[in-house]
Amino acid sequence: MPRIITLTTDFGTEDPFVGIMKGVLLSIAPTASLVDLTHQIEPQNVVQAAQVVSAATPYFPKKTIHLVVVDPGVGGNRRPLALKTGSQFYVGPDNGVFTSVMESKTRCYELTRKKYFLKSISATFHGRDIFAPVAAWIARGTPLTSLGRKILDPILLDIPRPRFFDDSLSGEIVYQDRFGNLTTNISASLLHQHFGKDPKLVIKIGGKRILGLTDHYSQIELDELGAIINSWDALEIFCREDDAAQRLNKGLGDRIFVIKHP
Amino acid sequence: MPRIITLTTDFGTEDPFVGIMKGVLLSIAPTASLVDLTHQIEPQNVVQAAQVVSAATPYFPKKTIHLVVVDPGVGGNRRPLALKTGSQFYVGPDNGVFTSVMESKTRCYELTRKKYFLKSISATFHGRDIFAPVAAWIARGTPLTSLGRKILDPILLDIPRPRFFDDSLSGEIVYQDRFGNLTTNISASLLHQHFGKDPKLVIKIGGKRILGLTDHYSQIELDELGAIINSWDALEIFCREDDAAQRLNKGLGDRIFVIKHP
Amino acid sequence: MPRIITLTTDFGTEDPFVGIMKGVLLSIAPTASLVDLTHQIEPQNVVQAAQVVSAATPYFPKKTIHLVVVDPGVGGNRRPLALKTGSQFYVGPDNGVFTSVMESKTRCYELTRKKYFLKSISATFHGRDIFAPVAAWIARGTPLTSLGRKILDPILLDIPRPRFFDDSLSGEIVYQDRFGNLTTNISASLLHQHFGKDPKLVIKIGGKRILGLTDHYSQIELDELGAIINSWDALEIFCREDDAAQRLNKGLGDRIFVIKHP
Repeated sequence: MPRIITLTTDFGTEDPFVGIMKGVLLSIAPTASLVDLTHQIEPQNVVQAAQVVSAATPYFPKKTIHLVVVDPGVGGNRRPLALKTGSQFYVGPDNGVFTSVMESKTRCYELTRKKYFLKSISATFHGRDIFAPVAAWIARGTPLTSLGRKILDPILLDIPRPRFFDDSLSGEIVYQDRFGNLTTNISASLLHQHFGKDPKLVIKIGGKRILGLTDHYSQIELDELGAIINSWDALEIFCREDDAAQRLNKGLGDRIFVIKHP
Repeated sequence: MPRIITLTTDFGTEDPFVGIMKGVLLSIAPTASLVDLTHQIEPQNVVQAAQVVSAATPYFPKKTIHLVVVDPGVGGNRRPLALKTGSQFYVGPDNGVFTSVMESKTRCYELTRKKYFLKSISATFHGRDIFAPVAAWIARGTPLTSLGRKILDPILLDIPRPRFFDDSLSGEIVYQDRFGNLTTNISASLLHQHFGKDPKLVIKIGGKRILGLTDHYSQIELDELGAIINSWDALEIFCREDDAAQRLNKGLGDRIFVIKHP
Repeated sequence: MPRIITLTTDFGTEDPFVGIMKGVLLSIAPTASLVDLTHQIEPQNVVQAAQVVSAATPYFPKKTIHLVVVDPGVGGNRRPLALKTGSQFYVGPDNGVFTSVMESKTRCYELTRKKYFLKSISATFHGRDIFAPVAAWIARGTPLTSLGRKILDPILLDIPRPRFFDDSLSGEIVYQDRFGNLTTNISASLLHQHFGKDPKLVIKIGGKRILGLTDHYSQIELDELGAIINSWDALEIFCREDDAAQRLNKGLGDRIFVIKHP
């Protein structure tokens, strides 16, 4: 079976940087199957990259290698990492970008063995010089233990969690997609746990009130705001055939409240 | 031979939705060769998606599977489809997106067999939960007859056709590309049929008159408007090294007239 | 080993043109591995395409085929080319786009053998009709000598070179990336040759003065301008966590001067 290597970067698709990394990957692992997750992470937005990685990687098969290069500290003293979590591999900088995929059993390695890097290491493009070659060597079967030394203190981001205040559940927007749909950090299971099965809920965001969850987008009127459990099993605010983010003037980090219908 | 699966969506490339579908595809069909047609269909523009699919898919080899997810009715009661037309396969929602590739011999199936879907079906992302897994099972050789029940009434769009008024042939713009070139629904064969071989023609669009067809773009002066038979064998209006759509302030659905030079 | 074919065009990713070329490539060479370099070359900007091609292709393995379609003269009398330089292959129009990869040992062929083209050749899309099929035949092992006749006079662009005036080295911006980083045509080796090893330098651009080279981006303060040797071994002007091109209002073709610190 060909090994899959996914790529997630903030490089955009105008410049040839992604193509250069693919050249390095295929030079070392010629039969690897390369899949782009996205190259349009906002420049240096590690939090956004962490969300994308944790949202997408569960859908890939075992032994997939996920290469993530959102690396504002390139060339400085941030550590280069490879890690194994569940049955998948991740390669990238130690800046918190892997926070959401870390588990108790995750094993992290600082990449120190230069024989798995390109010969010449630039100050500005470790995606090409370190991370891509290491990902390709993992695809070829190199064990993580050969790549460097185990570490126990990878950098972790402070990922926002929903909180309870009296009867109200308070969360925040953690993802905004191209359609303007707003994904919150409130999971379906948290809603069920707190409010019971099939409760009548009121969702408050930006001065607006949304009554109840809908089962599918087309269940509500055109141009109306709605709330739904989306494909990540999370509470999402949408506007039918329009852009909820624009309509509400809300986005990443903004607050949302859920209460039981009185 | 690896089976090819193409992807056409309105998901854009910023979000990880396309990557997630590729994870699902490769989990089921690990040796498939994945090709993006475009992910920049305007959100929910089924007509545009239908044009792209019919324009591109004839260039793929036999047995290619074309996965199309432009799906405003997701989660509602629109049917999920797989179809075989000529020697190629198509998978996507029953909303008319396959209108232009349907032929008399096309066989359509409503996807009803849940064993070929992901286990859990969300309300918002059937591209991941239904269409990608079914496309992958087709790539593995699953016959369409196993996937659901045959239907005879797929939804068809009302695709505009050119018409004759007296001596004039009236068509419309059906595609505008990134360069601002305007493809019409008037084919080369229709021109020949109506006006004879190598006729002198006048093309009228937006108050402008273009005299004659040119053989290639560089045959006319810089900044001039021209008319040409393009790579889809259709009449195209272009502006040499400029954007004809902007110059004429014309685009999709706008009218064009062709008459014989007096 | 699967043969790699890279694609570089000005087609953008909205239209299905790139997908159509991939359909043609895989119809002829079904096991080829396709890699996009970029499809966002500015429309018809042959100079930019030449920079991208020379910057990216050295990172690909031997026998890779690079398909480049930035082709303002399509359908006219510009020649279609295939060439071999080092151990890689290039296919595209004879308009200077291969200038930077040409070497003394490069062998160039004008594509004249129509049996390696699609049967019907349009006036507007030789990427599909000529260049993609020829690239695929090369991937299948067809020798260049079978594709056409050797030529000795390919078109070459006048690539800007840095110059010395008295004590000052004068170069220009040759690439601006998505982050607004400005790559110059001044190489690290030229700096060392002219100013010695580890010299104190002053870089002048747009009325600003930058003192010295930094070792990595994070070495300077946020929002400050810096100069660095980048991943192409070239002098680059950057602004830490900001856009140097916007800050300086400078871009492609603008001048930069380097002098020894007095």
